[in-house]
Amino acid sequence: MTGTETVLVEEGALTRFCTACFEAAGVPAPDALAASVNLVEADLRGVESHGVVRLPIYVQRLLAGAMNPRPVIRTMRETATSLVIDGDNGMGQLVGMEAMRLAIAKGRASACAFASVRNSNHYGAAAYYAEMALPHEMIGFSTTIGGINHMVPWGGAEGMLGNNPFAVAMPGGEAGPVTLDMACSVAARGKIIVAAKEGRSIPADWAVGPDGEATTDAARALEGFVQPVGGPKGYALTLVMGLLSTMLSGAAFGSEVTHMYDDMVHPQNIGHLMGVLPVDLFEDLSTYRARMDKAAADIKGVRRAPGVAEVYLPGERERITMKYHRAHGIPLGVGVLAELRALGVQHGLRL
Amino acid sequence: MTGTETVLVEEGALTRFCTACFEAAGVPAPDALAASVNLVEADLRGVESHGVVRLPIYVQRLLAGAMNPRPVIRTMRETATSLVIDGDNGMGQLVGMEAMRLAIAKGRASACAFASVRNSNHYGAAAYYAEMALPHEMIGFSTTIGGINHMVPWGGAEGMLGNNPFAVAMPGGEAGPVTLDMACSVAARGKIIVAAKEGRSIPADWAVGPDGEATTDAARALEGFVQPVGGPKGYALTLVMGLLSTMLSGAAFGSEVTHMYDDMVHPQNIGHLMGVLPVDLFEDLSTYRARMDKAAADIKGVRRAPGVAEVYLPGERERITMKYHRAHGIPLGVGVLAELRALGVQHGLRL
Repeated sequence: MTGTETVLVEEGALTRFCTACFEAAGVPAPDALAASVNLVEADLRGVESHGVVRLPIYVQRLLAGAMNPRPVIRTMRETATSLVIDGDNGMGQLVGMEAMRLAIAKGRASACAFASVRNSNHYGAAAYYAEMALPHEMIGFSTTIGGINHMVPWGGAEGMLGNNPFAVAMPGGEAGPVTLDMACSVAARGKIIVAAKEGRSIPADWAVGPDGEATTDAARALEGFVQPVGGPKGYALTLVMGLLSTMLSGAAFGSEVTHMYDDMVHPQNIGHLMGVLPVDLFEDLSTYRARMDKAAADIKGVRRAPGVAEVYLPGERERITMKYHRAHGIPLGVGVLAELRALGVQHGLRL
Repeated sequence: MTGTETVLVEEGALTRFCTACFEAAGVPAPDALAASVNLVEADLRGVESHGVVRLPIYVQRLLAGAMNPRPVIRTMRETATSLVIDGDNGMGQLVGMEAMRLAIAKGRASACAFASVRNSNHYGAAAYYAEMALPHEMIGFSTTIGGINHMVPWGGAEGMLGNNPFAVAMPGGEAGPVTLDMACSVAARGKIIVAAKEGRSIPADWAVGPDGEATTDAARALEGFVQPVGGPKGYALTLVMGLLSTMLSGAAFGSEVTHMYDDMVHPQNIGHLMGVLPVDLFEDLSTYRARMDKAAADIKGVRRAPGVAEVYLPGERERITMKYHRAHGIPLGVGVLAELRALGVQHGLRL
């Protein structure tokens, strides 16, 4: 994405380094490992924005006491089909995985089940949680409110909404699963940062300046907000995902949301919503798998536009990238690598 | 949207006319009325594309035997949290409403519940079904596969996907509910039709020609396909909504989808997915309502961009429009009105 120089790092080495850093910040070893596997998976999938690039801020928040390294994650309410989870201000990865595990457990008892979460933190890539449902032959859903109000309500000029991501993962047959994972902006903020560094202008639909008016000036865009995909559609999507993530659990929304990078004092009280639909409540698994394969063949087999070599299913590229990175190493930008090494030096760790 | 001349028609008169047309096509009186109320509500909300403009094609399909005027809607599978509904090729409005009623009934027994549907038809506006959950203090979800393959997989040059809509409705407090209702294209096909009629070019992100390449030529765009909102994001969204609507029930997907307007012989086997999350499984209702009101105040109270008089919540404009149209009449395009009158003449009915 950034076009910067990269260095290949081996998955195991990167995971061990992250684990050691989390342990140095007081996280118990099994939790440190689990969170690291989650983070590194984003890099394996090529979703660098939600991978180890976040390690420094997580460690910083843990050390500052803004995140709790040893949370006691508790179920506050529960029925056969619902859960409310309090994350005790633990890392979003740990809280998110536990919430999804509990939802899946209810799914295994033949229920469509949803878990709302409060007192959590930035949980990384939404797809990770949705895909936890796949081995159990369930459709998985996951959404979270973002850790920074990077977006304005449609027509507004004040950050009041996160760029809230959501994911849906559907088990597949031979052709593999289908995973939708998207945030609600036209372009990631990282792309605007790169354009600003390079002195390039940006397309008019990427961002608004601090006054709420569309701008092609990347520097001004960075003082402003990212634009929602499809205008009012993306606004409605990010708002609804934010409300689903917070109104069912008591997590922070809107003016209650603090800034993940700027406020190192207050817990963020991030909220999530996780859900599962067990396929076999609706359809025989063998029929479902065969029909998913037929659907995949329909999509991948279409006549292609000029210059297009292959049509991909959502999530398919990420699986291909994952295999490749697992075999050949994960390309980390030299800037990210330098940050990780500096973090290591602080804790007597080497990458 | 079209800038065409309109005539104001009173809600009751329009509903009675639709009801009589459906009855003339063999639909029993209570069903005819229920479907008409559903259709006219779309016009009341200002969503003309899913309102009475569809009456002629519905009646045509009923009379041709491509839709069943007297379906026996049956529950094929059922658990405490799930339903599979066979619509017996009935009108999508009737089947959709029945599926949502059954999901709500399970919600009232304290379950997150989902209903998958097969052998249904075009169901109109997705919001209608999601909003059926609101009086029961449940979050409602609804999606359907579209009745025409108007979209290509990302990189493709062949229509294999509907412009599949979905809706989420969340109960609110004093400020009212929040309703997201969107399809997955950048712009409605109707806008391209208007541009072609007026000889205007269209923005490059609205459509691709029959070869799969982006085009600004409206006439060529009409031979092609509408573009997904946010490129691969909209592709992933419409694909996943299509799969959710069909893979859990055995409804038609991809190459199995026939053309609602061109094929008057085969039943369409349209699929839907409906769901409810009862709020009180997760949060005390009074707390939830107060927090929704605070969220609404945050959103509506933001500093506004220059020239913006008010920031709206998703669904708020439609509620305002509905009140206005209810009081002052529904503006129908003269072309639509002429079609309805021609339909009436065939059946000895006057509008």
